[in-house]
Amino acid sequence: MSRFLSERYSAIEPYTPGEQPKNRNLIKLNTNESPFLPSPNVIKALNETEISRLNLYSDPDTREVISAIAETLGVNENQIMMGNGSDEILAFAFEAFCDKEHEPCFADITYGFYPVFCELFNLEPEIIPLKDDLSIEPSDYFNKNKPVFIANPNAPTSLALSLPQIEEILIHNRDNIVLIDEAYVDFGADSAISLIGKYPNLIISRTFSKSRNLAGARLGFAVSNPDIIADMLKMKFSFNPYNINRLSIIAGKEAMLDAEYFEKCVNSIKETRGYISAEMRKRGFAVPESKTNFIFAKHNILSGTDYYNKLREKNILVRHFDKERIRDYVRITIGSREQADALLNATDEILKGC
Amino acid sequence: MSRFLSERYSAIEPYTPGEQPKNRNLIKLNTNESPFLPSPNVIKALNETEISRLNLYSDPDTREVISAIAETLGVNENQIMMGNGSDEILAFAFEAFCDKEHEPCFADITYGFYPVFCELFNLEPEIIPLKDDLSIEPSDYFNKNKPVFIANPNAPTSLALSLPQIEEILIHNRDNIVLIDEAYVDFGADSAISLIGKYPNLIISRTFSKSRNLAGARLGFAVSNPDIIADMLKMKFSFNPYNINRLSIIAGKEAMLDAEYFEKCVNSIKETRGYISAEMRKRGFAVPESKTNFIFAKHNILSGTDYYNKLREKNILVRHFDKERIRDYVRITIGSREQADALLNATDEILKGC
Repeated sequence: MSRFLSERYSAIEPYTPGEQPKNRNLIKLNTNESPFLPSPNVIKALNETEISRLNLYSDPDTREVISAIAETLGVNENQIMMGNGSDEILAFAFEAFCDKEHEPCFADITYGFYPVFCELFNLEPEIIPLKDDLSIEPSDYFNKNKPVFIANPNAPTSLALSLPQIEEILIHNRDNIVLIDEAYVDFGADSAISLIGKYPNLIISRTFSKSRNLAGARLGFAVSNPDIIADMLKMKFSFNPYNINRLSIIAGKEAMLDAEYFEKCVNSIKETRGYISAEMRKRGFAVPESKTNFIFAKHNILSGTDYYNKLREKNILVRHFDKERIRDYVRITIGSREQADALLNATDEILKGC
Repeated sequence: MSRFLSERYSAIEPYTPGEQPKNRNLIKLNTNESPFLPSPNVIKALNETEISRLNLYSDPDTREVISAIAETLGVNENQIMMGNGSDEILAFAFEAFCDKEHEPCFADITYGFYPVFCELFNLEPEIIPLKDDLSIEPSDYFNKNKPVFIANPNAPTSLALSLPQIEEILIHNRDNIVLIDEAYVDFGADSAISLIGKYPNLIISRTFSKSRNLAGARLGFAVSNPDIIADMLKMKFSFNPYNINRLSIIAGKEAMLDAEYFEKCVNSIKETRGYISAEMRKRGFAVPESKTNFIFAKHNILSGTDYYNKLREKNILVRHFDKERIRDYVRITIGSREQADALLNATDEILKGC
């Protein structure tokens, strides 16, 4: 830390992203990327002509990708804004709608970035514990009178609330923002998009990094009512108006419009998830019913740290959170069937040594 | 504005980027883009293999492009950080180093984003007027004891301070940040990069949008001492760790390493700038000696607004700032020689009508 950093950041602990190793021989099941290439239409659209136009600024209004999202999700264009990944969307939401009179609340076990945003924006969140089974109790979020942030499905637990449960939370929070972080929703949970018109305080954040196979393009978006979108656009245009690059705008548009490929990829992930969940259970793991592109698994003997380290020795990278309540778990991305088999084989070898 | 927006933003006025019209028949001289394509090595490197990898996250440490910059500029890798455009770099600097005890100072006429960052981060800047000839008086910045932000060359004036003048400012500001915004420095001004080792409070921000022909890739960077870079990285990793997409990292690396193409493009801009400045002066414009890829021109009869509007009618887009002291000027990007001739022809027609 330099002597010039503002004192309010003296204790800030930035987010630690999952490791991005240089070694391409590793089986990388640690950051919930898609094992599938981007849509063939993305690859076709990012041609030499488009690349040659990189000397020109991108459209700060990102109209092309917004129009594709609006068409696909059946919402209006003025109900959408794009972020440089959904992390930026979340950042703008914490920045715009939280302050000393409106401190946010969220679960004790959820996306690890929420507490980091609180440090960055000098907020003191109310932390709401998950139930013993790591699920969310909807009534814990009733009548909060402060901004509510819920990841649905939740990470890293992989568990989802139903649409009626989400609506119950909205019914009991009329006067504050409710942000539903739907990064993983396409893998089997109910989206709250259908509630956007009904609850003007609802914000949904989404990402192209998981189900749209575009983690490297950095694209996320918010869906909400036009007033709230206008507020979040104020944040964007006061921070970084050209936040999305030219090629990502095109990639996002093509990925969003290729419904067939999207479904094929998502269905394959679900199938592999069913397979790997069943096989892990046979091997003594508790595996909650995942609605995401990862599983959250805990063995009855092997500790989370040991399992993580031993997989790493075998060139398989998963994610372990050294945090109370979830220290015994590892989070494993659902990749290809081959990666699943490699994981199961490695796990068999590890368990032999227990 | 929704009723949920934090009150502190009730009066915020976001930055207005230069218009990005859909109409490709316009001659666009309003956002200081390069008229030249990205380096051929960029176009070659962004091949189908790389595009196919967009399903994977980008490197949050952006090592490849940092290494290319370090090599090219002769600084260490830990003295560099990447931003999603230099706007993001500037935002992180305002956020990290300014607060109620350290309000920033900058010129009355300078990059229009500085006051916007102040609104976003709730800062009250000290505004230091330029001299009557729109140049900066270095001694006005001595012993500020608060963060100093200077665009060098300055925008939209196109005027530059010399390296000794910048060093004088640093000598008289030992205990506060001095950020030199070198977005346009490659077009003929002295860079302060050579002073980085000598003044631990110096930050330089740079962009790939102008001299590196990559406005659409969204790439900027900071050069400073490792402590300050570490502070700014804390902001990035607390806001958006994967701020640079995969393809822009590659594009930035290739653009930085292609010194020959870079020099060819910059030299061509300088040549056209000399031509257009001389021709404009012949037509009754005052054109200060530009060190940038734009000129800032004022006619002795024709008002700035009229000139802007009449050029627009002829499908030529330039930038006009409706702001005290510079209302009579227009800012004109130096594009290709053909664009310069089109501008001069249009100007001749406009002046005939005066």
